[in-house]
Amino acid sequence: MESQDFAVIPEGTVASPKGFIAGSAYAGIKSPKPDARDVAILASVTPCTAAGVFTTNKVRSAPVIVSESNLTDNRAQAVVVNSGRANACTGDQGLADARQMAALTAAKLGVQAGDVLVAGTGVIGVLLPMDKIVTGIDGVRLSEDGGHDFARAIITTDTRTKEIAIWVELGGAKVTIGGAAKGAGMIHPNMATMLAFVTTDAAVEPGFLQTALRRAADLSFNMVTIDSDTSTSDSLFLLANGQAGNPPVGKSPGDVSPDAATFQAALTYVCTYLAKEIARDGEGATKLIEVNVEGALSETDARLMARTIASSPLLKAAVHGNDPNWGRILAAAGRSGAEMVEAKTDVFIDDLQLMRAGRPLPFDKKLASGVLNRPEVFITVRLNLGAYKATAWGCDLTEEYVRINSAYTT
Amino acid sequence: MESQDFAVIPEGTVASPKGFIAGSAYAGIKSPKPDARDVAILASVTPCTAAGVFTTNKVRSAPVIVSESNLTDNRAQAVVVNSGRANACTGDQGLADARQMAALTAAKLGVQAGDVLVAGTGVIGVLLPMDKIVTGIDGVRLSEDGGHDFARAIITTDTRTKEIAIWVELGGAKVTIGGAAKGAGMIHPNMATMLAFVTTDAAVEPGFLQTALRRAADLSFNMVTIDSDTSTSDSLFLLANGQAGNPPVGKSPGDVSPDAATFQAALTYVCTYLAKEIARDGEGATKLIEVNVEGALSETDARLMARTIASSPLLKAAVHGNDPNWGRILAAAGRSGAEMVEAKTDVFIDDLQLMRAGRPLPFDKKLASGVLNRPEVFITVRLNLGAYKATAWGCDLTEEYVRINSAYTT
Repeated sequence: MESQDFAVIPEGTVASPKGFIAGSAYAGIKSPKPDARDVAILASVTPCTAAGVFTTNKVRSAPVIVSESNLTDNRAQAVVVNSGRANACTGDQGLADARQMAALTAAKLGVQAGDVLVAGTGVIGVLLPMDKIVTGIDGVRLSEDGGHDFARAIITTDTRTKEIAIWVELGGAKVTIGGAAKGAGMIHPNMATMLAFVTTDAAVEPGFLQTALRRAADLSFNMVTIDSDTSTSDSLFLLANGQAGNPPVGKSPGDVSPDAATFQAALTYVCTYLAKEIARDGEGATKLIEVNVEGALSETDARLMARTIASSPLLKAAVHGNDPNWGRILAAAGRSGAEMVEAKTDVFIDDLQLMRAGRPLPFDKKLASGVLNRPEVFITVRLNLGAYKATAWGCDLTEEYVRINSAYTT
Repeated sequence: MESQDFAVIPEGTVASPKGFIAGSAYAGIKSPKPDARDVAILASVTPCTAAGVFTTNKVRSAPVIVSESNLTDNRAQAVVVNSGRANACTGDQGLADARQMAALTAAKLGVQAGDVLVAGTGVIGVLLPMDKIVTGIDGVRLSEDGGHDFARAIITTDTRTKEIAIWVELGGAKVTIGGAAKGAGMIHPNMATMLAFVTTDAAVEPGFLQTALRRAADLSFNMVTIDSDTSTSDSLFLLANGQAGNPPVGKSPGDVSPDAATFQAALTYVCTYLAKEIARDGEGATKLIEVNVEGALSETDARLMARTIASSPLLKAAVHGNDPNWGRILAAAGRSGAEMVEAKTDVFIDDLQLMRAGRPLPFDKKLASGVLNRPEVFITVRLNLGAYKATAWGCDLTEEYVRINSAYTT
């Protein structure tokens, strides 16, 4: 895909697009280690057309509430993020704290408080230590080279940063799209995502920007699952500052012009890369699992089944142990709620077929175990009912996941 | 409850009701260890009014298909069960094998093949070793004292048997209800259950029997979750042979006479006991978790939220580590889909209140950790919206769960 329409920038970051700057500081919220940066700011030198997608959890963090409100005018210029505490289930004081984070960042950058988005993840039900936040925001130094520092400061139990930037040609102009994300636990987004920040110097119409972001999220972040737990903080932001000088993309939300299609594909590529990086870095995970469901009666069915299989704890544990216990794939498919006819169903692990039209095929257990003993495992279920398909990503379930989550606040 | 209306029989089994006999044999399907009994038969000396509830998974095992078909006349006299292989995803041969199990059992007992129900759990996608099954069925010796042997033979990864029998007075007659169940993994029943067998010498009308069983299942087995994975083999059977001589219970499916209410309560008690035993013995589990949701707008909402909280891997891991990370309770409640208003919600662990009307309360972490460090952990969410409530049961998530399920077939 990228070879035709776009190219990945080596060491690209969320600050790679023209006119974006980023940075972070250590405030002592996440960890007592002085290299554990935990306050980060991302900004554009000019106001941006902006879009956001947020958690569908009925319990929503204060940053989610404040950011959604600040995005109603489809405009934003900066994002401030902390890690270590989610500022969720914190009542009115939490809301006031999130608004103060926006105000402090606005004052620091000389932008409007209503143009600052807020995000944060970490422990739920504990107020932010605002003295530390104030010091942290004050200490952030922003620059064009600050993308890596930003990506490093937003993570919590992640073992590595998730970053990408790509070039794409739009209307004769060279446009850059950058992104950074965090997330390794409480990952089962629903019409939203963990924390992800996408930037572009493309000029994009606001209605199209929101539609394109939602579509990209549906194909990427919303198809990732680590532990079936939808977070209260899930937020995906997209800021487009137009500095690339391309003719604005997307006359209407449903624009299908070549430029609109190219932008959608490029945006989906960036989101999918970040989403897969999140699944690969799932808490305790050692493998990325990709589940493809084909031949479904509807896209809804294909998506539902792919996500259900990718989130089955039994399948995830079997993949961890290189155990070709493929009955668990079928059991998860069957309980997903999607239409299926057992007697028509084919099942594959990688290119090894284990079931044909509902009948188990004899297979070499050692060979199958070897196929599972890889950093990326591909599972395919062909329903042979219709023309729809979907892909979901997850990770294996390990003893380490349990250890990490048995002792998080204490 | 039991003190008023019924009494638990010490060492009671599924064969405790009058006229029931049971037994098992070793056939070498589940394990090479000669004490690993794996074929079991339960029978009544006279034909029974019978009812069943089965898995809602679209992939259904051959025993489920055969048993449901044999129950269409609301009549049964025996059940044959194997452990070690589920006979699921086995195509036409699997169906023929399940029917042969019924026929062999019928011939052995001198009953009609259509009056024999079939069940089995274990690995999916592998044919039954019918030669071993034939020898196994032939070797079973049935007796009134065979209930424990039956309960022992049906288990797989369970660490102990699940059995109970109670006495209850119905229309002046002393009636017995017995039950045996198995299940420790792939436990997230939906309008059905893992394997459970309930017997009674009560006389019960068939329509009422089915309705009563479904209601009992909804309050018990359907509120248990170990790992969110609904099995392809879930089956719950109830056989009533009328030998207690009580006036038949349940003129209509919705009978609300005192006898009908007493029978319903007693049946629900037996099913709830077995369901909790399954949760307590969840693969790798060290604790039983009981989740109570109160003040919901509907029973559906209360059930949905209770089950979602009980199945949250993050909460289950936190309970395992005695970590009072109560934000995970609220995050699971919020993603359940049930109506809730954060600002009205109260959260308790045991009698320790952690949130009042959406505000976190200061609490002693050591005290909270101590409350979690018990074999039974009680979590309560009060929504303060309506009059409905529900209870769900689950277990903690441990490293041992992952170890058990990383290597099951290999």
